[in-house]
Order: sequence, then C-alpha cells, then structure tokens
Amino acid sequence: MVDTANDRAPASAAHPVAPEQAAVEARLVANVLKSFDGCADPRLRELMGSLVRHLHAFISETRLTEQEWSAGIAFLTRAGHITDDVRQEFILLSDVLGASMQMINVNNAAYADATEATVVGPFFVAGSPEIEPGGDLAFGAPGEPCLVEGTVRDSDGNPLAGALIEVWEADDEGFYDVQYDAAKRAARGHLFSGADGSYAFWALTPTPYPIPSDGPVGQLLDATGRSPMRAAHLHFMVSREGARTLVTHIFPQDDPIGWRDAVFGVKESLIKSFEPQSAGSPTPDGRAVDGAWSRVRFDIVLAPVGT
Amino acid sequence: MVDTANDRAPASAAHPVAPEQAAVEARLVANVLKSFDGCADPRLRELMGSLVRHLHAFISETRLTEQEWSAGIAFLTRAGHITDDVRQEFILLSDVLGASMQMINVNNAAYADATEATVVGPFFVAGSPEIEPGGDLAFGAPGEPCLVEGTVRDSDGNPLAGALIEVWEADDEGFYDVQYDAAKRAARGHLFSGADGSYAFWALTPTPYPIPSDGPVGQLLDATGRSPMRAAHLHFMVSREGARTLVTHIFPQDDPIGWRDAVFGVKESLIKSFEPQSAGSPTPDGRAVDGAWSRVRFDIVLAPVGT
Repeated sequence: MVDTANDRAPASAAHPVAPEQAAVEARLVANVLKSFDGCADPRLRELMGSLVRHLHAFISETRLTEQEWSAGIAFLTRAGHITDDVRQEFILLSDVLGASMQMINVNNAAYADATEATVVGPFFVAGSPEIEPGGDLAFGAPGEPCLVEGTVRDSDGNPLAGALIEVWEADDEGFYDVQYDAAKRAARGHLFSGADGSYAFWALTPTPYPIPSDGPVGQLLDATGRSPMRAAHLHFMVSREGARTLVTHIFPQDDPIGWRDAVFGVKESLIKSFEPQSAGSPTPDGRAVDGAWSRVRFDIVLAPVGT
Repeated sequence: MVDTANDRAPASAAHPVAPEQAAVEARLVANVLKSFDGCADPRLRELMGSLVRHLHAFISETRLTEQEWSAGIAFLTRAGHITDDVRQEFILLSDVLGASMQMINVNNAAYADATEATVVGPFFVAGSPEIEPGGDLAFGAPGEPCLVEGTVRDSDGNPLAGALIEVWEADDEGFYDVQYDAAKRAARGHLFSGADGSYAFWALTPTPYPIPSDGPVGQLLDATGRSPMRAAHLHFMVSREGARTLVTHIFPQDDPIGWRDAVFGVKESLIKSFEPQSAGSPTPDGRAVDGAWSRVRFDIVLAPVGT
C-alpha cells in the first residue's frame, strides 16, 4: 500500500485545531464527497473522491490563508494565460512537482530486472529518420560525439531482435531540433536491434539545459530556491511486439545537476558511465572523429506486455 | 487534529501495490520534498511540502493513468483559457470542490456562539448605497419583498451599536445588479445597527440561481451528475471595531436546492425561517406592499477580533 500522505505529522503538529473546529471541517469534506454520489461513472467518482479528500486535507493541514488561496488562483490563471499551442505551463508544473514522473512510475510498475522508465518530455517526434546499425543520428547537430552500444533482452535474458529503438536529445546549445524549426530533424533517429539483440549508434554526449523558466513555473522555482536545469540525458523509446514499451533516459554519471534534475527524471539504475575518450583515440568502428568523444553502454531489458 | 485525508482506505484497497513498487513511489516523493530544502521562506516550504505529499498520494492511490493525467492537463488549460477579467473559472472550480468554503472555515474558527461564516462569492461591491434603519435596499429589483430583522451582539450577549451591515443578493431572475451593468446598484445596500444592537430592512425573498455552467466547471458538474444551482441566499458582511468581520449568508428553510448547494455554502445554523405572508397582510412598519411578502429574523453574534 502506498502511504506517502501519512507523512504529514509536521504540518498537523504545527497547527493544532480544536475538536469542534475539526468537526466543522470534516463535515464539509463529507458533504462534498456526498455530492458525487450521483456520478454514474465509478472511476470518475473515485478520482473526484481522492482529489477532494487531498485538496481539503491540504487546506486544513496548512491552515491556508485567504491571501495564499488568492495567490494560488492567480498562479493558475497566469499558467493558463501563458499556455498556448507550443507552450504548456500546466505540464511544466506537473513536471516540476514530480507529478509527471509519479504518473510514469504508476503506469510502469517495477518488473523483475526490466529497465526503469522515466518521463517522456515534450520533444518526442514520431517518424524520426532511420539510421543503419552503427550509424550517426547527430545529423550535424553541435556537440561531442558519443558512441552508444548495448543489447535489448527480455527479463529471462533472451535477446530481442528487431526492437525499434527511437532516440532523441538536445544539442550542446541546449536545444532540440524542433526548437529551431518544427521540420528540422537532428540529434534524433531510430534503428532496430540485430539478431543477437545488439545495437550501436553514434549520437552526442548529453549536456544539461534549462526548462522554460520565463513563466509562473520559473517564478515558483525561483521563489523556492530551485534550479530550472534538467540533468543531462539521452532519450530512448524502445518498442517490440510482446514487450511493454519502454520510455526512458540515460544520464551521465558526473553531471553537476544529477539528482537536482528539475523534473525528477533521474533514477539510480539509469545513471550510466559515459567514458571520456581523448582526441585522436581510435574508434572501435574505424570512424574518424575530430576531437574528444565518449562511449557508453546501455543494456536494455523489456518487461512483457501487460505488466 | 484535522485528519480527513486518512479516510482513503477504499482507494488504497481498490489498487494494491507491491512493496518494491511502493518503495519506488515513496523514494520519488522524498526526492521532490528534498528539492524544497533550499527554500528560504519556511511558510512556502510548508505549503509546497503539503501540496507535494497530497498530489503524489492522489496519483498513487488512484493509480492515475496517462490518459486521465492528460485529461486533467486539458481541463486546467480550458479553465485558463476561459478565465478573463470578468470570468474566473479557477475560483469557480475551487467553489464547486468545496475548497473555497474550507478556506473560509479555516480562517473563521468556531468561537462560542458566534455566527458562522460562509463564502464571499464574486458579487460583493464595496461602497453600496446606505439605507435608513427599516429602509428598502431592493431599489426596484424584481422579487418578493422580505422584511429582515435582528440584532448584532457580542458573544457575551452585549448589543453592538453602530455595526456596519452590508447586504447583497440576486433578484428573482437570478442576477445580481452588476451582472446587468457594472455601475448598477440594486438588491444591495448597507445600514448600521442601532443603540440596542437592533436592525431592520426590506430586501427580496432569496431565490435559487445557477453558477456559470457553460465552461469546463459546468462540464465537470454535468459529468458527475451534480447541479449548478446555488441554494437561495441573502449575503451579509458585518463589520465593527473590536469584532472579527463576519461574511455569511442566510438560507430559507424550504429551498429545494438546500444542502445540494453547488458551492457548499449551507450550514445548519444559517438556515432561517422565512415566514410567508399572504397578500394584504399588514406590515409591522405600516409599509404598503403589493402582493405576498416574507419575514425573517437573523440575530448576529460577532466573535472578538483576533479569534
């Protein structure tokens, strides 16, 4: 049983309430819950019930003032007004509160040694360019070359041939291709695992970049002493018949942002050793590289479909 | 201690979770809470902590799906886009979830026999017309005349002279004056209690009306089988030096909406007997009234300032 909401002794202890006052507040919660008794959809009734109980507990625990309530209304209003077809401040808010990541956790239950999932983010594009095994998906995007190698297996250790591996990342300026131009495709591509489940491709060594911080979510991060920086990462989506689709990132081990990732996407099992290679050191596939490069191994385990 | 959030056994029982999965979800909550450790404002840190714990518990308890999460983001986006200078969908959302009423409860703690508070609503206007004791604040608004009489006292029973009594209400078409024209003033006024704490005025017998239901909040009410109707009510704001300002309504006893009030403003102690008077029955002040009228008594008790 997930029981995280019980860890709220500090708030309750900070604001003791007389029993008759607590009774007034509890009666209101009961009345609001009762208002949903006529809801014909049981799942919607469950969602509204849980939402109402937690919303009211938040107000009662914190003894929310009218000024704070008004500030909350004004925050949501500003978030609504900055949101348009290309800017989604409510998703950003969900991200920086860890809600998006928790939703991903809930919908990708831990399964044996299956690779863990993390957030999708806003920059996935279906139909990226295909590359050959060992090919380069940077397509000229600026950054340090990085050789990524690994295998795709099931949780019994059997290699999975023909898995679709979709990869995307920001360049070393901190921008995805589509942020320059919706039609641009670079630092993005897809390939398939071989008969032995192996794969290899060239990409860019990932670098940290900030989430959009010029709106209300940025103001919230600023007011709470948090950074808008995402930990450096390389996105993967791995799909194969019979397997649960995996959406994840890998993170370099020495990133100065690391666990302070603005959207809480980092998991211990997804931190990988990106080994620095000095300029001029030979590449395993004989590829000519200008300057330094890096090399990382990422072995992927897919859970069965339906888990 | 207010402990309403503990009443969530049904949700947890409905969706059992393996311990290793619960640990993944709890670790994320801990990580998000930790991100606010650097917040310099302890009150903001407390608010964010409580918000994060309840938001994550909601997601984990309900096993929120990606589709449901997306529907929530889309709902907030529509609410943001319909909100402008005269329409505030986020306040409406807070109202229909009982959050506005709970915030009022928290900020107007039960005190001896002090009159209970309820929601302000969006239609209070400072600087309403003054009427003489016994005067009429309908100013021609359509509806059945109603004589309102009572006293203002402190919780020791001492009469409070010179209390400012501000009153406003919808007409029997369901509209407030300012909904016709921002400058219009009708079914609205103020007066002062006399030397013995007594007051009397003529207004309109209150009638039910709907909250705005043509936006996302209306869709939510519809999807959950709820009515957009507010219980009939007459608004009061009562202010006096040394007393806690009281914002409340009184509700007629036989309203068909009653406890199903869309914004949960009804409290047992605020339901009053509006006694119907047939056409032609004499008024106590000799006022000539066309047709039926009603008469209600509302004795007001103010808590001391600072309670």
